[in-house]
Amino acid sequence: MKIAVINPNTTVEMTRVIGVAAARSAAPTTELLIRQSSHGPSAIEGPFDGAVCLPGLLRAIQQAEADGARAHVIACFDDTGLDAARALSHRPVIGVGEAALHVASLVAQEFCVVTTLSRSVQTLKMNILRYGFERRCPQVLASDIPVLDLHRPESGAREKISDLIMRAMENGAEAAVLGCAGMADLAATLQQELGIPVIDGIDAAVRLAEMLAASGLAPSKRRGWAFPSRAGDFLQKD
Amino acid sequence: MKIAVINPNTTVEMTRVIGVAAARSAAPTTELLIRQSSHGPSAIEGPFDGAVCLPGLLRAIQQAEADGARAHVIACFDDTGLDAARALSHRPVIGVGEAALHVASLVAQEFCVVTTLSRSVQTLKMNILRYGFERRCPQVLASDIPVLDLHRPESGAREKISDLIMRAMENGAEAAVLGCAGMADLAATLQQELGIPVIDGIDAAVRLAEMLAASGLAPSKRRGWAFPSRAGDFLQKD
Amino acid sequence: MKIAVINPNTTVEMTRVIGVAAARSAAPTTELLIRQSSHGPSAIEGPFDGAVCLPGLLRAIQQAEADGARAHVIACFDDTGLDAARALSHRPVIGVGEAALHVASLVAQEFCVVTTLSRSVQTLKMNILRYGFERRCPQVLASDIPVLDLHRPESGAREKISDLIMRAMENGAEAAVLGCAGMADLAATLQQELGIPVIDGIDAAVRLAEMLAASGLAPSKRRGWAFPSRAGDFLQKD
Amino acid sequence: MKIAVINPNTTVEMTRVIGVAAARSAAPTTELLIRQSSHGPSAIEGPFDGAVCLPGLLRAIQQAEADGARAHVIACFDDTGLDAARALSHRPVIGVGEAALHVASLVAQEFCVVTTLSRSVQTLKMNILRYGFERRCPQVLASDIPVLDLHRPESGAREKISDLIMRAMENGAEAAVLGCAGMADLAATLQQELGIPVIDGIDAAVRLAEMLAASGLAPSKRRGWAFPSRAGDFLQKD
Amino acid sequence: MKIAVINPNTTVEMTRVIGVAAARSAAPTTELLIRQSSHGPSAIEGPFDGAVCLPGLLRAIQQAEADGARAHVIACFDDTGLDAARALSHRPVIGVGEAALHVASLVAQEFCVVTTLSRSVQTLKMNILRYGFERRCPQVLASDIPVLDLHRPESGAREKISDLIMRAMENGAEAAVLGCAGMADLAATLQQELGIPVIDGIDAAVRLAEMLAASGLAPSKRRGWAFPSRAGDFLQKD
Amino acid sequence: MKIAVINPNTTVEMTRVIGVAAARSAAPTTELLIRQSSHGPSAIEGPFDGAVCLPGLLRAIQQAEADGARAHVIACFDDTGLDAARALSHRPVIGVGEAALHVASLVAQEFCVVTTLSRSVQTLKMNILRYGFERRCPQVLASDIPVLDLHRPESGAREKISDLIMRAMENGAEAAVLGCAGMADLAATLQQELGIPVIDGIDAAVRLAEMLAASGLAPSKRRGWAFPSRAGDFLQKD
Repeated sequence: MKIAVINPNTTVEMTRVIGVAAARSAAPTTELLIRQSSHGPSAIEGPFDGAVCLPGLLRAIQQAEADGARAHVIACFDDTGLDAARALSHRPVIGVGEAALHVASLVAQEFCVVTTLSRSVQTLKMNILRYGFERRCPQVLASDIPVLDLHRPESGAREKISDLIMRAMENGAEAAVLGCAGMADLAATLQQELGIPVIDGIDAAVRLAEMLAASGLAPSKRRGWAFPSRAGDFLQKD
Repeated sequence: MKIAVINPNTTVEMTRVIGVAAARSAAPTTELLIRQSSHGPSAIEGPFDGAVCLPGLLRAIQQAEADGARAHVIACFDDTGLDAARALSHRPVIGVGEAALHVASLVAQEFCVVTTLSRSVQTLKMNILRYGFERRCPQVLASDIPVLDLHRPESGAREKISDLIMRAMENGAEAAVLGCAGMADLAATLQQELGIPVIDGIDAAVRLAEMLAASGLAPSKRRGWAFPSRAGDFLQKD
Repeated sequence: MKIAVINPNTTVEMTRVIGVAAARSAAPTTELLIRQSSHGPSAIEGPFDGAVCLPGLLRAIQQAEADGARAHVIACFDDTGLDAARALSHRPVIGVGEAALHVASLVAQEFCVVTTLSRSVQTLKMNILRYGFERRCPQVLASDIPVLDLHRPESGAREKISDLIMRAMENGAEAAVLGCAGMADLAATLQQELGIPVIDGIDAAVRLAEMLAASGLAPSKRRGWAFPSRAGDFLQKD
Repeated sequence: MKIAVINPNTTVEMTRVIGVAAARSAAPTTELLIRQSSHGPSAIEGPFDGAVCLPGLLRAIQQAEADGARAHVIACFDDTGLDAARALSHRPVIGVGEAALHVASLVAQEFCVVTTLSRSVQTLKMNILRYGFERRCPQVLASDIPVLDLHRPESGAREKISDLIMRAMENGAEAAVLGCAGMADLAATLQQELGIPVIDGIDAAVRLAEMLAASGLAPSKRRGWAFPSRAGDFLQKD
Repeated sequence: MKIAVINPNTTVEMTRVIGVAAARSAAPTTELLIRQSSHGPSAIEGPFDGAVCLPGLLRAIQQAEADGARAHVIACFDDTGLDAARALSHRPVIGVGEAALHVASLVAQEFCVVTTLSRSVQTLKMNILRYGFERRCPQVLASDIPVLDLHRPESGAREKISDLIMRAMENGAEAAVLGCAGMADLAATLQQELGIPVIDGIDAAVRLAEMLAASGLAPSKRRGWAFPSRAGDFLQKD
Repeated sequence: MKIAVINPNTTVEMTRVIGVAAARSAAPTTELLIRQSSHGPSAIEGPFDGAVCLPGLLRAIQQAEADGARAHVIACFDDTGLDAARALSHRPVIGVGEAALHVASLVAQEFCVVTTLSRSVQTLKMNILRYGFERRCPQVLASDIPVLDLHRPESGAREKISDLIMRAMENGAEAAVLGCAGMADLAATLQQELGIPVIDGIDAAVRLAEMLAASGLAPSKRRGWAFPSRAGDFLQKD
């Protein structure tokens, strides 16, 4: 079964990292289609990037669907373009942000999100409200570590994230969601270190995408996600 | 990987039906442990049955865990005993009600639940509130068809459920959750007939249980689900 | 008028303490039936204890009703088994947790709960949401004092609880609810010391039970609290 | 123990009816102080009447407190002036609207309010939100029967109210609150006829006032209900 | 176009300050009717003052409407009497509290209110809930600076308010609403100093009143704001 | 003062209609910059169109700002791109949907939205939740009249919209918001015919934009609306 994992930005290295994380989680019978936008911003940092990446993201989804993808993962924790993608596609579409939140709510009564930029906090809080997790996930914390520093040991990134989660635990968090694809490596380490579930969105999303596809489910085409009448024209032209 | 599916009532025929449905959804690599309570009510109809079934249910979960279960499914749409089971177990525990609601929210912006008894409506509404789906799932409808009539063609059960869902669609539902294990057979037929996603909780729960176990996740042991100090004594004595 | 006060655990000393507190609040015309579960856990600490105590609790309620109780109080701040008890009984059933919260909301715009164990916090928060007090009671604090230490002067229990309430007052609390039957003695002292209303659930529940019984009210038997069809069989057998 | 019951309008006949209803509910040891505003509107129909009645209402409360009232009941279903009265008084103050809603939530999971005028519906909905009952009481229905017609048999008032409640029951109500003091007579009849709890606010409020006074509770004087510095001057002058 | 700005208290100096602030914001084509209550409290500090000022406030609104006002501003941050005024008037009525909150929500995703007295905090929180801004405005802070000290440089008022806003910014506020008419002077200074939008209610309310009047809008007269039948009598008599 | 009104679709005729409506509402001192996207979909019908129009919309906003616009109106009832535009701009940005909702909440306690397509209902409901109007605006109704038929008398469009609003009034609406720019002509007629406030978003948004600009307010640049670092590059390239 083919599952598409789409990086909505245009940075090849990030697409590679996402692909490695997805491969760790995919079932042996899954063939991953790791894709990225053909044009658009080099990273999704805040609502402007989240807006201008959309044509490239939607085109990549359309292409992946033409290539036989049975489900799509949008590999950006902001879940940008989720409604548009579900309208465009006849297959399940999962955002890594929503995936992580759903999974967290199955292993903790109350949990937190730790993301990179304070610029993204309100977007995540709005998503949390849309999905219904505002009571379960009252804390969204920004580490303000540059994404590229996450993997440099001397940056102290892991320690800083660990400290943030421990502070959240004092305020009631019983599990933590890592709100950035670049943090996927850290999940297992932090889970062991902190003794609470630590959820990585790529893992959650790839597995949920496989699951929904296997169940024969797809976005409802009534109302908001009805197939867009102008989809064909636009995607050719743009 | 062993996954336990526990029928919290004592009716052997219902355990068998649940087992058949679970087998349809389980991965080839999954070994299902289909269990039922050793004692307790013959069906879970309302909060009294939901209360008195708990010791038997919890004992069955403890036994399944001792037998190597890597995750547990509570096969009752009311999700009775979910918090107690998550405290008792070191493995993921999924209720079929919550599983269906989570899955529905990934394929529809607004959806309904169709259950059998009006006696269960408030329990389900309270669960929907707890999980955070009160805005996504504003309609919980009771068919008031006796469970045993669900499979008799002359009972008109399918037509009645179909009518209820169509009424819900007029009021905004874009997908339907079947709120009773005995309705699992109907999901595929209704989905085709009505043209919207129709979700069966057993399917959703078995797949989510497999997924969480594979991800190495388990209930957070901080606060509410900490392992109960009296678990050993009680389960031996009772 | 007979009012039953049921301790859902099996510790005789706690039943005695509850009885003393209830006697302080009951009207002269009230005859108290102080009962405890015949079997089950020795204390209700978290959702597992709250689940396994239910058959014993429900049996005690059924017995008290047979003995002429006109109303029932469930003497556990978690309000465990409230829906099942209201289904089983034809008389008002009041939990000490809900009673205290209702009363607090009549004497303060915003208030806090101070309980013993952090293990109980999420159960209380969920109850607060069910009853509708989530905006009025945003703070649920755990003292983490062992119940048996509450009355030992050298334990510093009163000071610790007083400190917790003062901290809650700085964050907006205008009254405090004592979330443990064992704290009933402290209510008057703390109220005087802190200058805000301090509410004890036993007092609130006994008076509300008397009041509802005198008003001729009883649980609605439509839908969720309809008398359970299997009540007779089960309670005989179990 | 003296309990004041204050009619915030200036119609003597309504004060008499309220007094009769209160007397049915008061304990033998209670001495009722039945009072009315010295000036103000002849009925409270909507927010304008609810505003201009306040000086007269507050003066009556101050006088009743000087006369030894241990608690006050505001006998208007809109609960007008509740916060101002709680600031002014050092004794419990209960509105008949809030009293009925609290009691209803103890005997039904979902209930409705039936009031007289559609003009009052939004005021009641706002109160329901303030108190936290918006999920428990989603239906507020207006009978649009003139208050004075409530007791004329040929007006068909009882039938019309009964019909409204039955319609609410079809939409989920399991109990009904009568949202007008003039309906107090009907509560017992309707309860018997409809087979669900029917709650009258005067009964609920008188008993809650007695109960809070007996418990030694009073409005918290922190923040919003702190005694008003200008209370003395104003009430003398106005 | 005449716009009335009504100070609901009887302090001439505050009316003058309000008039100066309103004049700064009014359009050149606007003729301001700056009014104050003929009788009532000298300041609105808490719900008691907010209640007893209402007859005077409503009379002033009625007079202003007779004098040709096309819209009314209630110049008290508590928005006292808003529903009664909207029932009484056939012209738009705007409270300075609601005006500031609406405007803040158009320039910030999350914001705070800084008011003078902790006594007003619950009233403001309740208004915020009524208007729907409870998620956008989670912080309501009291400076506890006496109103008359706001303009004395040696009082350190500006520094204290600035400190409060900076603390709110650390907790997520992206804009600040000044919750007191006497703070209007400080808005521009604080906005420049803190680098975030700082909103003054008088400015917001005067402009919204002009805008609604120009749009030909007025309070809906269905249900709660229907013209009160007793308005004429009462306002003559009282 | 220059105010930009941006049509996010590419249909010249709709831009013209929007310009006519805006001109009716703008102050004499306002110079309107009526703009449309240079590329993108010919109409915004649902979330796919709402996504792919964004680069064109944002470019138009950037151009208008360069041309001296002091505020921007996004002339699409879905308020698409609002957060991205507020990040990009240093001037107030108002969506016609949010503008209409804010204004409606100042003239009615409860109101409805009538839009054209059922495909847009969920987008509008989500916006209503974001802005906090979910309790004030519980009804979002779709007329399912093609936009181009709105002005053909034989289409019966006005009658159909009028019927929808009357049905909403029976269910509690006290005012109506017209959820489509093409309905602007109908507002005055419907308001007169139905006797309740009928709000057109273009009118509301143009006036709010003028008002915020005159107040010297602009989007907070803390967190979510911080100026996007990649704005310059992207808008040149794309």
